[in-house]
Amino acid sequence: MNDDLILLGHGSGGKLSHQLLDELIIPNLSGVPAAGQNDAALLNIGGVKLAFTTDSYVVDPIFFPGGNIGDLAVNGTVNDLAMMGARPLCLSVGFILEEGFLKSELARIVTSMREAADAAGVAIVTGDTKVVPRGKGDRIFINTSGIGALEHNLAINGAAACVGDKVIVNGCIGDHGIAVLSAREGLEIDSGIKSDSAPLNGLVAELLPLGEALHVLRDPTRGGVATTLKEIALQSGVTVKLSEESLPINPGVRGVCSILGLDPLYVANEGKLLALVAPERAEEALAIMRRHPLGKDAAVIGEVTEASAGRVVMETAVGGVRGVEMLAGEQLPRIC
Amino acid sequence: MNDDLILLGHGSGGKLSHQLLDELIIPNLSGVPAAGQNDAALLNIGGVKLAFTTDSYVVDPIFFPGGNIGDLAVNGTVNDLAMMGARPLCLSVGFILEEGFLKSELARIVTSMREAADAAGVAIVTGDTKVVPRGKGDRIFINTSGIGALEHNLAINGAAACVGDKVIVNGCIGDHGIAVLSAREGLEIDSGIKSDSAPLNGLVAELLPLGEALHVLRDPTRGGVATTLKEIALQSGVTVKLSEESLPINPGVRGVCSILGLDPLYVANEGKLLALVAPERAEEALAIMRRHPLGKDAAVIGEVTEASAGRVVMETAVGGVRGVEMLAGEQLPRIC
Ligand SMILES: Nc1ncnc2c1ncn2[C@@H]1O[C@H](COP(=O)(O)OP(=O)(O)OP(=O)(O)O)[C@@H](O)[C@H]1O
Ligand SMILES: Nc1ncnc2c1ncn2[C@@H]1O[C@H](COP(=O)(O)OP(=O)(O)OP(=O)(O)O)[C@@H](O)[C@H]1O
Ligand SMILES: [Mg+2]
Ligand SMILES: [Mg+2]
Ligand SMILES: [Mg+2]
Ligand SMILES: [Mg+2]
Ligand SMILES: [Mg+2]
Ligand SMILES: [Mg+2]
Repeated sequence: MNDDLILLGHGSGGKLSHQLLDELIIPNLSGVPAAGQNDAALLNIGGVKLAFTTDSYVVDPIFFPGGNIGDLAVNGTVNDLAMMGARPLCLSVGFILEEGFLKSELARIVTSMREAADAAGVAIVTGDTKVVPRGKGDRIFINTSGIGALEHNLAINGAAACVGDKVIVNGCIGDHGIAVLSAREGLEIDSGIKSDSAPLNGLVAELLPLGEALHVLRDPTRGGVATTLKEIALQSGVTVKLSEESLPINPGVRGVCSILGLDPLYVANEGKLLALVAPERAEEALAIMRRHPLGKDAAVIGEVTEASAGRVVMETAVGGVRGVEMLAGEQLPRIC
Repeated sequence: MNDDLILLGHGSGGKLSHQLLDELIIPNLSGVPAAGQNDAALLNIGGVKLAFTTDSYVVDPIFFPGGNIGDLAVNGTVNDLAMMGARPLCLSVGFILEEGFLKSELARIVTSMREAADAAGVAIVTGDTKVVPRGKGDRIFINTSGIGALEHNLAINGAAACVGDKVIVNGCIGDHGIAVLSAREGLEIDSGIKSDSAPLNGLVAELLPLGEALHVLRDPTRGGVATTLKEIALQSGVTVKLSEESLPINPGVRGVCSILGLDPLYVANEGKLLALVAPERAEEALAIMRRHPLGKDAAVIGEVTEASAGRVVMETAVGGVRGVEMLAGEQLPRIC
């Protein structure tokens, strides 16, 4: 392994991604961008508070059970805005098309983007379209950037977790990654699993009345629930204890994971959020989620146990406790 | 030529780009995005007026005389904000890296981005980093999206050209395209030409006091001056008459163009703007530009002669008049 080169793992969202950011990108940017390690940057422009975020999508295949690269690109950016407690307003879209890509597929993707934008209540307001020669890209890559309005004074962010907080997830984990994987050429897996790709801004709007009790929101995308919780634990300087038995996992996801040797805790989600909520309001938060169509299977999966340098541990089904680290290497490249 | 497929020309910024947008993207988006055909979308969020824009950069080679893909990505998005008369404030950056890309090159590019952002007075506030397997990308693609503040009540845009307006360019045309071309592998051209990549927000700030006399600003990037003027003519419903003799063109650009059969009028610029200014303030606008380091070679290159369906004509050096259309096909793929 050559240390001078970019590896697939630098795009995993896990340990190598964090190293690349901390050791190469941030030092050369000469300062931590306003987003810090959060899902979006918070800005104050002329007295108006905004959130601003970006993501590029390189998922392979571009069509998969439950969605395609287009709605994924809309939902993903909507969700990063929502995770700051912002109301997503508008998106930009940048296409990088490979020469020879089918116009009919582009039309399907654009249509999905519009439908997803409508469903999330956001507008696609500007865009850009580039084409690269055959063999220099892969059909279509999409960047979406988004602006949201921050209409409250809460400081929801990854550094706000407190001892005692309950960790709540709004449903089953790992569906997106397994849906994409099962659609890959050559893998004949019929898991029946669909991507959970969905806009979470409606659910977040229901949670905002929890006010100061709502400490952290984050979408466990690349790197999965494990990596995301480790990020939060590090940012907040706390230990998070997960309970293995409480993790909601679809049997289909469990099945594919056990066949392929994957851990659902590290598999990407695109319609899930983790909420860290003060214990006295945790039951209420859970009830709010369960009333929402995107939170029917919500569950408390752990809690913040103590201040620390940033640890995640898991109480296993058999009663042991093991450490949980960020995703190492890359188990599923190009999952989003 | 298969009409079902995306061609390189769909990324040219010329005729095919416009067709793809008008016939496929906009219909499937079910409505014209707020940017319309302008460089950025104008938004009003909580009473604050903003501009929002995006561009992806796929230039090849990634390092070229006068710049690299990093500063280009910063300047390009800064300029699209400035062309709406907005003050650029902050940018997002999305990297799509190819597995095996050299970390040292990434570091150089990030450093250039930071320097360009500093020079333009903008902050890079959020980002995203994806990696695709070898052969599925081409070293590095960059998306930048940007937000600017609109701090006046002028309606500078492509539909605002009026009969009588003078067309002013802030300097020599075609340098960027020829600089990139001369750096391409296999082409042993030593034109001595450097990219004009530069942030134009400072120059635009000097022009804004022209007030209502400042009708249109646009950066002639892909498709060059010819395509950009044709866009403006169509948007405004006017005829623009160019004078061939007045076009400022570096001898090196002229030389390479004549050897390779290129027309400098269609070659991309990355530090140029076209300003359409009411005739009574045109001399003043020219003087403002010439006082600025990025406008030393500014020149009046034409005028708006009459209302029409949208035409551009050129008075040639020998006294004839010929029609000028948008770039057809693609003369220089991956120029930005
Ligand atoms: N995929 C897209 N979706 C929505 N709007 C788009 C898309 N591609 C381009 N547009 C819109 O079309 C117009 C022209 O875009 P274009 O990219 O040619 O402008 P530009 O960024 O000023 O030029 P360049 O990309 O050469 O720098 C803009 O208003 C832009 O918002
Ligand atoms: N190239 C970059 N430049 C500046 N900041 C970056 C860059 N890449 C990532 N970041 C920052 O690092 C943090 C984590 O980024 P990451 O992309 O992992 O988050 P995410 O978008 O929530 O996850 P995903 O991309 O899996 O959806 C964010 O705050 C982001 O702004
Ligand atoms: Mg996120
Ligand atoms: Mg994201
Ligand atoms: Mg563009
Ligand atoms: Mg432009
Ligand atoms: Mg542009
Ligand atoms: Mg991201």
